Amino acid sequence: MVLAEGKTPEQVAEIASRLAERADRVLVTRAGRAYFEAVQAALPDATYHETARAITLERRREPKQPGVAVLCAGTADLPVAEEAAVTAELMGSGVERLYDVGVAGLHRLLDHLPALTGARALVAVAGMEGALPSVIGGLVAVPVIAVPTSVGYGASFGGIAPLLTMLNSCAAGVAVVNIDNGFGAGYLAAVINRLALSERPD
Amino acid sequence: MVLAEGKTPEQVAEIASRLAERADRVLVTRAGRAYFEAVQAALPDATYHETARAITLERRREPKQPGVAVLCAGTADLPVAEEAAVTAELMGSGVERLYDVGVAGLHRLLDHLPALTGARALVAVAGMEGALPSVIGGLVAVPVIAVPTSVGYGASFGGIAPLLTMLNSCAAGVAVVNIDNGFGAGYLAAVINRLALSERPD
Amino acid sequence: MVLAEGKTPEQVAEIASRLAERADRVLVTRAGRAYFEAVQAALPDATYHETARAITLERRREPKQPGVAVLCAGTADLPVAEEAAVTAELMGSGVERLYDVGVAGLHRLLDHLPALTGARALVAVAGMEGALPSVIGGLVAVPVIAVPTSVGYGASFGGIAPLLTMLNSCAAGVAVVNIDNGFGAGYLAAVINRLALSERPD
Amino acid sequence: MVLAEGKTPEQVAEIASRLAERADRVLVTRAGRAYFEAVQAALPDATYHETARAITLERRREPKQPGVAVLCAGTADLPVAEEAAVTAELMGSGVERLYDVGVAGLHRLLDHLPALTGARALVAVAGMEGALPSVIGGLVAVPVIAVPTSVGYGASFGGIAPLLTMLNSCAAGVAVVNIDNGFGAGYLAAVINRLALSERPD
Amino acid sequence: MVLAEGKTPEQVAEIASRLAERADRVLVTRAGRAYFEAVQAALPDATYHETARAITLERRREPKQPGVAVLCAGTADLPVAEEAAVTAELMGSGVERLYDVGVAGLHRLLDHLPALTGARALVAVAGMEGALPSVIGGLVAVPVIAVPTSVGYGASFGGIAPLLTMLNSCAAGVAVVNIDNGFGAGYLAAVINRLALSERPD
Amino acid sequence: MVLAEGKTPEQVAEIASRLAERADRVLVTRAGRAYFEAVQAALPDATYHETARAITLERRREPKQPGVAVLCAGTADLPVAEEAAVTAELMGSGVERLYDVGVAGLHRLLDHLPALTGARALVAVAGMEGALPSVIGGLVAVPVIAVPTSVGYGASFGGIAPLLTMLNSCAAGVAVVNIDNGFGAGYLAAVINRLALSERPD
Amino acid sequence: MVLAEGKTPEQVAEIASRLAERADRVLVTRAGRAYFEAVQAALPDATYHETARAITLERRREPKQPGVAVLCAGTADLPVAEEAAVTAELMGSGVERLYDVGVAGLHRLLDHLPALTGARALVAVAGMEGALPSVIGGLVAVPVIAVPTSVGYGASFGGIAPLLTMLNSCAAGVAVVNIDNGFGAGYLAAVINRLALSERPD
Amino acid sequence: MVLAEGKTPEQVAEIASRLAERADRVLVTRAGRAYFEAVQAALPDATYHETARAITLERRREPKQPGVAVLCAGTADLPVAEEAAVTAELMGSGVERLYDVGVAGLHRLLDHLPALTGARALVAVAGMEGALPSVIGGLVAVPVIAVPTSVGYGASFGGIAPLLTMLNSCAAGVAVVNIDNGFGAGYLAAVINRLALSERPD
Repeated sequence: MVLAEGKTPEQVAEIASRLAERADRVLVTRAGRAYFEAVQAALPDATYHETARAITLERRREPKQPGVAVLCAGTADLPVAEEAAVTAELMGSGVERLYDVGVAGLHRLLDHLPALTGARALVAVAGMEGALPSVIGGLVAVPVIAVPTSVGYGASFGGIAPLLTMLNSCAAGVAVVNIDNGFGAGYLAAVINRLALSERPD
Repeated sequence: MVLAEGKTPEQVAEIASRLAERADRVLVTRAGRAYFEAVQAALPDATYHETARAITLERRREPKQPGVAVLCAGTADLPVAEEAAVTAELMGSGVERLYDVGVAGLHRLLDHLPALTGARALVAVAGMEGALPSVIGGLVAVPVIAVPTSVGYGASFGGIAPLLTMLNSCAAGVAVVNIDNGFGAGYLAAVINRLALSERPD
Repeated sequence: MVLAEGKTPEQVAEIASRLAERADRVLVTRAGRAYFEAVQAALPDATYHETARAITLERRREPKQPGVAVLCAGTADLPVAEEAAVTAELMGSGVERLYDVGVAGLHRLLDHLPALTGARALVAVAGMEGALPSVIGGLVAVPVIAVPTSVGYGASFGGIAPLLTMLNSCAAGVAVVNIDNGFGAGYLAAVINRLALSERPD
Repeated sequence: MVLAEGKTPEQVAEIASRLAERADRVLVTRAGRAYFEAVQAALPDATYHETARAITLERRREPKQPGVAVLCAGTADLPVAEEAAVTAELMGSGVERLYDVGVAGLHRLLDHLPALTGARALVAVAGMEGALPSVIGGLVAVPVIAVPTSVGYGASFGGIAPLLTMLNSCAAGVAVVNIDNGFGAGYLAAVINRLALSERPD
Repeated sequence: MVLAEGKTPEQVAEIASRLAERADRVLVTRAGRAYFEAVQAALPDATYHETARAITLERRREPKQPGVAVLCAGTADLPVAEEAAVTAELMGSGVERLYDVGVAGLHRLLDHLPALTGARALVAVAGMEGALPSVIGGLVAVPVIAVPTSVGYGASFGGIAPLLTMLNSCAAGVAVVNIDNGFGAGYLAAVINRLALSERPD
Repeated sequence: MVLAEGKTPEQVAEIASRLAERADRVLVTRAGRAYFEAVQAALPDATYHETARAITLERRREPKQPGVAVLCAGTADLPVAEEAAVTAELMGSGVERLYDVGVAGLHRLLDHLPALTGARALVAVAGMEGALPSVIGGLVAVPVIAVPTSVGYGASFGGIAPLLTMLNSCAAGVAVVNIDNGFGAGYLAAVINRLALSERPD
Repeated sequence: MVLAEGKTPEQVAEIASRLAERADRVLVTRAGRAYFEAVQAALPDATYHETARAITLERRREPKQPGVAVLCAGTADLPVAEEAAVTAELMGSGVERLYDVGVAGLHRLLDHLPALTGARALVAVAGMEGALPSVIGGLVAVPVIAVPTSVGYGASFGGIAPLLTMLNSCAAGVAVVNIDNGFGAGYLAAVINRLALSERPD
Repeated sequence: MVLAEGKTPEQVAEIASRLAERADRVLVTRAGRAYFEAVQAALPDATYHETARAITLERRREPKQPGVAVLCAGTADLPVAEEAAVTAELMGSGVERLYDVGVAGLHRLLDHLPALTGARALVAVAGMEGALPSVIGGLVAVPVIAVPTSVGYGASFGGIAPLLTMLNSCAAGVAVVNIDNGFGAGYLAAVINRLALSERPD
């Protein structure tokens, strides 16, 4: 994995090319379109995921194992949710996207209950007051990986408010990753999802 | 209103007696039993509210106007919820107590929906992750006064976590008072409830 | 309501158009002029409120019910105060604007006392040291919704200073919304103001 | 699960008895010996876990499924580590305890590598600088649930330092629970461990 | 000056005795009665100020120069206000105490206006929302030394709230000392008051 | 006084013109050159102070009363120091500028001791570790107004580090104004300096 | 090294005995007298350092190498300063104690200049405003290890104020250890002092 | 040393020229290429260090004394690491650069163990979770100067996370400088390295 933020497109393209010599899969996150153009020049089979701001290279495509669901309340949290989804897919998981669920509209969330209980790992992305993981954790007994986002203003303090909400979740089965860290959540969800297939993780 | 915290029982009894000469109603908050004993010696018709840790004196009892509901998730938040309820009652409001509603048990909350939509002001008390007011604010169009509590541990930071959650509520119609400030919430709920009776507030 | 911040003008115009199919009233906040131009192309009867940075669509105009007053100390807080006022008006309230009142000029504030006591809900907007709601709450028994603003520098810490001031208000009857959240304050003031008309809120 | 903290022994005993009527397993956390004595009077088959400060009742014992390992660096973090271990065991997992691993003694950690790679979920408990989960996450591809503890002094700020360290972990596959929340970590580890047995979580 | 806090009564008595050999005036602050008893044994002419928790020794009494006023809103802030007053008196100033002025009761404050405008230095002590110095600074052109106190609860955060309020005061002529630092404020007020007597400070 | 920050040059020019109709002296702070050009168009006799980023209008020049000294350690703190000096001068004080004194070069500071002890009010401006006021306060018995600046990086946190240093000063006679608030410090220094001339402040 | 804090005297005695079997030197810090009594029962040749709250065992005494000086301003900081001194001595360094130097009394500090310039490593301990290391660092070109202490009140925030002061020191050659961490500072000073003796550290 | 940040290229060039008249060595930090061009015009023998963003002038080159090693985990921390290395070299030390060591890749770190144990002072630069100095301090008994960097996002809070990690390091022999302060770390490492050559530091 390469975090593009804080590097130049040229540096990222070079690192990605080097990784591609040793691995079948490469992921670049926090990458604007200029990064993709630089990477594509070196790796023409790379793919750009606009909303996720992510670049992927996947040279040996295998069937994806269903079991991961990614949830968020709306468009503002989409980039982080998509970063999680793209990461989990590249790691071999099939991902169900539920992007219209928020605590201010409980009925939509309750409609999705079958999809939630049928998953092996849930990624719940939320900014502002960050209550989504608590509500979900109270409804299902599936591991919930909570991702606070920096979306919001004022006393959201760049994501501190939802981060604290999630750490204090009254529901069991919730763990938290860094603010805006869609990659970390998608990665962990895929690792958990893989456990169901094998006696032992690789 | 007298905040007992930081004063001696004798000081509180003396201030309460002085107030009782000028007013029909006196309220002492954050008062342990020793405070009540000192106040009762001077004002034998005072009443003690154990859970709320409050002392009230109400010399001219009038019928209470229904319209305020106080909500919390369980025993840990009861002292703050009761402080709000006792305050609103002393201010002339009839109070409905809904003390088993939490975001980790949505169905109980949905069962109470008629009581919520029928109220004129709701007080929602919550510690830990503090998501209750957001969920309620998404369900009803009644003013919600949110009270964060210092209940919890670790990253709840003595109530900062639910305070931030409530300030960032994604639901409209929610306003927040200080951590553990049941008095302030009950007072404001009663003031709002009174508006429905009169053309103009007194 | 649509928060324009963090969305493109095209996204906002599309969401606003979708809302306008189902509702008579639409509000877009934190919207610069480019947002208005995009919205106006889709909804020619939309109105732009320059100072409030808000776009409104109001297809069924009804008489406004007086009862809300919005207060601030001067030009720096005007955008937030106007966001509150425009929101309350769109929600059906008549709004009195008192924009020259600050704690450093007590006499102007005292001159406005009749307007304050005659209102059903007050919105007090203040940055810097944020003392306005405390002073107002000590003068009148009307619900005060306090809005801290991010105006200021140094130890105002982007609005934390007035936020804390307002949460610690020594006056009863004050509740607080998020930093710069004029919308939330105006919405809540209008909801409270409506209570006086009906036996039960809708 | 019952959090004893903030309740009286009598309240806890009463809640535990009520739960025991409906469930085969009961867990009380943050419970000193006085709590155990009150619970034992009502539920004579309850067990006390001294270091974990936990009370368990387990009426239908079944074979434990191996797969969870709990790690910490030493005696100061033992109560939180044991709370995690006891919780995971009550949830049906077999737990390997590795309590002498710290980043200041890398060789012991490397000696335990086979146990780490063979687990399905790791709980890494650490106070002070909280680097243990990062180091472990860099060594194995197993889900790591990180628990910051409030052990330490000065700039550990009651657990904020290791909490931030863990949230910023440079290793993928790490998620974090609240400070001192051994229960939450053990619960989540057991939920993940169970996934490997069933096609779908219950 | 000796800060008793963090020292034993014996240590304080010994330091005070040593100072009394070289100076006519000695001040011990944050001193409970046990400290006074130890000091009095060594210095029988020492005086104890109960509310201020201060011990003074003043061997050469001279007429006090009027010009300092100390203000606070009520009993909770009295210890800090008295520490300021006792300090200024020991430094040679005559002190006017105005201890019933708060921003929630503007009229009492306005009644004291002549005393405020006639002073050479004002000490304004306030906890909770800490708005008193701003209001005073807007009324008079006299130097205002603001002292935040740790009185309050919840989001007053041990005095951070009034400290920030005072630092952000919208009124000119206000400067701030540390939380609960009555000594520092009284000392500085006396230094300023002395300037009016002499061409040059000593 | 007009704070230009957050206003347009046109707004500032208009407010300044309005003030100039009623007063002999006008001060605009935080004003870049564009602000001066707008103000000068309306008030041709206005003066620009480049380093202080301040505009002054002074229509009735009177002799300045010596007694204020402004100190800082070097070029980075100059804008704030000059804002203080220009303010004090406009208020009628003569100002001695000592701009090469820092705690890392004690000898220069000791060389200036006569100037320090001869002043009636000192303004000490410092960023980074902010120790200058403590050192000065230990050397002289003159009121010290400390101004923390936002100069620095990393753990200076935009001025919080020197702010805390100054609030905790071990030297008596020091009071603090907001971060970067040269205006407030210069204003207060001039008010104190004036006290020496008159029996009573105006 | 054993940190007694958070362990029982029995646990500490047992750990110390175990260490004494393998090493010639044992150090226990943050240990009250009860800890010493437990340790002494097992290790009769252990020594107690009252002020430092430290227990040492040193079975092979060798000549101490001069080169370390420990500085602080007074009695409140003595426990931390002594912890540093005792640690450095146990590590083989001769320690010069300079315990009456503070920034509010510059002349005493300047008197000690020869001792400072003659040392190989300085430990500067300070609470409150924490300016001592900056002043020392500006006077000498010797490594300065700064130790903030939690001594103080109000805005010292348990040592955060001097910690930030020291991290922002304008003098080069200063590095900082944790709040109250006398052990860490003394250890590092001794390690640096030893470098001068050997071509290579052991 | 000149910190370019916050000064114009012209100011920096002028200060550097002035210093070059009195000293053989000049260092400018935080200097973009525009700064170098201005300095080079005045001092043609100045050298630019692109990655370190530093300008050096070294007029009397002498053999460098080996003994300093600078470590970091990768490209994002390079500018701070290089600032430390360039500073130590200018101060007369030979510097070994180990720029591919991170806690997520322990084996590379262990491979470098001989270089680490052979040094007299180590500079460990790390952002994100900042665990590198703890791991190194546990492996070697050489002084470790830890430099937190502002690299990272979310809960790294501009370097606060690694700063706290380093201050709480469980390994002895670690001291910390300000966030991003490569200069301070390199300077101190060189001062320590020089001690080994001389009986007394200069």
